[in-house]
Amino acid sequence: MSGADIARLKADFEAVAAIGVDPQGGWSRPAYGEAECTAHDWFANAAREAGLSVRQDAFGNSIARLEGSADLPALAIGSHLDTVTCGGLYDGALGVLAGLEVARRIARSGEARARPLEIIAFRDEEGRFGAFTGSRAMAGQLPQDAFASMRAADGAVLGEAMEAAGFKTERADAARRDMAQIACWLELHIEQGPVLEATGEPIGVVTAIAGQERLSIRFSGSAGHAGTTPMHLRRDAFAAAARFADRFRDMILVEGENSARGTIGIVRVTPNQGNVIPSQVSLGLEIRDISAPLLAHLAGRARALAQQTGEEMSVDVSCRTSYAAPPVPMDARLVAALDGAAREVLGRPAPHMPSGANHDAGILGALVPAAMLFVPCDGGLSHVPQEHTDWPPIADAVAVMERTARRLLASTELTQC
Amino acid sequence: MSGADIARLKADFEAVAAIGVDPQGGWSRPAYGEAECTAHDWFANAAREAGLSVRQDAFGNSIARLEGSADLPALAIGSHLDTVTCGGLYDGALGVLAGLEVARRIARSGEARARPLEIIAFRDEEGRFGAFTGSRAMAGQLPQDAFASMRAADGAVLGEAMEAAGFKTERADAARRDMAQIACWLELHIEQGPVLEATGEPIGVVTAIAGQERLSIRFSGSAGHAGTTPMHLRRDAFAAAARFADRFRDMILVEGENSARGTIGIVRVTPNQGNVIPSQVSLGLEIRDISAPLLAHLAGRARALAQQTGEEMSVDVSCRTSYAAPPVPMDARLVAALDGAAREVLGRPAPHMPSGANHDAGILGALVPAAMLFVPCDGGLSHVPQEHTDWPPIADAVAVMERTARRLLASTELTQC
Repeated sequence: MSGADIARLKADFEAVAAIGVDPQGGWSRPAYGEAECTAHDWFANAAREAGLSVRQDAFGNSIARLEGSADLPALAIGSHLDTVTCGGLYDGALGVLAGLEVARRIARSGEARARPLEIIAFRDEEGRFGAFTGSRAMAGQLPQDAFASMRAADGAVLGEAMEAAGFKTERADAARRDMAQIACWLELHIEQGPVLEATGEPIGVVTAIAGQERLSIRFSGSAGHAGTTPMHLRRDAFAAAARFADRFRDMILVEGENSARGTIGIVRVTPNQGNVIPSQVSLGLEIRDISAPLLAHLAGRARALAQQTGEEMSVDVSCRTSYAAPPVPMDARLVAALDGAAREVLGRPAPHMPSGANHDAGILGALVPAAMLFVPCDGGLSHVPQEHTDWPPIADAVAVMERTARRLLASTELTQC
Repeated sequence: MSGADIARLKADFEAVAAIGVDPQGGWSRPAYGEAECTAHDWFANAAREAGLSVRQDAFGNSIARLEGSADLPALAIGSHLDTVTCGGLYDGALGVLAGLEVARRIARSGEARARPLEIIAFRDEEGRFGAFTGSRAMAGQLPQDAFASMRAADGAVLGEAMEAAGFKTERADAARRDMAQIACWLELHIEQGPVLEATGEPIGVVTAIAGQERLSIRFSGSAGHAGTTPMHLRRDAFAAAARFADRFRDMILVEGENSARGTIGIVRVTPNQGNVIPSQVSLGLEIRDISAPLLAHLAGRARALAQQTGEEMSVDVSCRTSYAAPPVPMDARLVAALDGAAREVLGRPAPHMPSGANHDAGILGALVPAAMLFVPCDGGLSHVPQEHTDWPPIADAVAVMERTARRLLASTELTQC
């Protein structure tokens, strides 16, 4: 990457860094809010300046396009421009700006393109109204009543927020796209985890997006006075939940094949008073892995452990799956293409790794060939104002994306690459 | 107990049951609120009708008195008339109404009394402004700045609530009493636990009020994305807290000498989101026992277990004692007196038991000889609208209190009985 190129990308980051600055720290560009819309407007102008045509679909996803010589499915690159509240600069924006930079280089190169190149900036990846709203709208996966039923934590309704942002909300599937128009999807994203930093690697090639199963487990015992109820007459919901939690973690460590991740992030204790034995505890638990059979095995084991622990502790247990998403393997040919380009740019292989978090690539990747590159982020931190990635790995990753894109654009052989 | 006596006590309960009925269920007579004041007014009238003189001290505690022939310290009987929000009918009121009934019987008997009898109804036992406000005021144990510093959860300030109820708030120690005026304290209370019901016993003689140590334990790890952070790179505060909680319970079961009670009633998880590894967990833990050395041992073991678990899990642990109260043994001679009377009334011995909860008897018992009787409550339930005790054990308990009181009133030998 030339010095001029780095300067251009830095300037793009400076421009986006001015949009949605939150007085509380970091950036807040919630979906369909003024800041997200401003970011999309900025992107459209920048893409037009680079010679791309730009449109917004019915859900406000921005699609910048550089036509190819043949009417083949497009190579699509991108990510999203919304942020969590008081989030960071790189999550999402990096993938969009890297795509823009790749498109600029390709447009300027004057090379023939066998297929179109699209840079797509999705809306609401962070899930103000439900995760991946924009890419799910394009994939045709939103419920028919999405405009009314998808609501933000603050009570805002998707349809009303979209109309306030200037979009018509006539049909929930209005942004649905024929996926045969997209040959494949590439996305550069910060890792949002500590693995690359811990190993000192600038780039990771993603092999699969982990599937997940979220369980909501309720332990129901009996409230009682903490002073007056002897230990043997208790049905202590937290004692049961704590024992289960410890066993759950051990089980993931032993049976998770050094790959799976199991987390209890939500704990609600009722009545949560110092002198009352807890009558009820709800745990929000999730398990992630890139292997569907392993995921199913671990979820089954978690349910069984909860029941077993409840029986030991005379506490009733109910367990339901609150969310489940299968693993999405990245396309093997695209992984090989990114891998080859990374070897050329770095002079050595880049590590292959799973994505523990889901991304727009996980939505599109279920329908079209997709692949992702990761760059490290300091301390593994994301969704916070301190979120940061150094320029050298970003420069390397953009170079890998550019090389890969050039090759894919040159090929006419595959309907989907 | 005669049928007439039961009818009179039932009528008293009906009168008190009409005061502070909460539309949300049960009774709400918060300290210094209109309902608590109405209950004290009712008590004063009923006591005067029974021939007692009645006064309120500077904190609004009602003291009904039947003089004795000699100027000896008084036998005092009673409890409190406030309730928790949506509480039950028996907690506190039973002790006051039983005392009133005993005083009526003694007044009507015409027997000579060597010492005075007092029936005392305390304010704010339930701790709207800080537990046992009324009895601590009489014991001279409130802080000098109590009127300003003691506040309710709803923000109400003790001094303001008292002034609104018509009390002057000039000196925090204005209700302090020379404890040499009180020979001893007897209190009848519902058990608020399941032991008597589980054993089918109508009466329990309390041997000691358990001491307690409350610990606030904070586990501080690192937040991280639940999907992107491998298990071995985590510092999961809830994983550490859960393991500690399980070990704490086991430790109490093994080392608690089948007597101590250990409870984790408060659990606060930060940030408490499904996809974020908990960065911080605060546990509110308490240990109770009637043995001061055992209590100290168990609290030390809890602290050590927390530290040890934190070290194993790479999580920082801080631990502080948020409250500590030593056990208060009941007076051996009073226990023997209640025990003897119980044998006469029941025709067999009543079980001896600790009080896991504290009572006004725990405040006074640190300064004067004190003892308590328990009656069972259905399901061990208290502080709820369903709180209930059958009439037969109440009748038995009042009979035991009456016999004991007659004997203590007949004795001139002890300055304090």
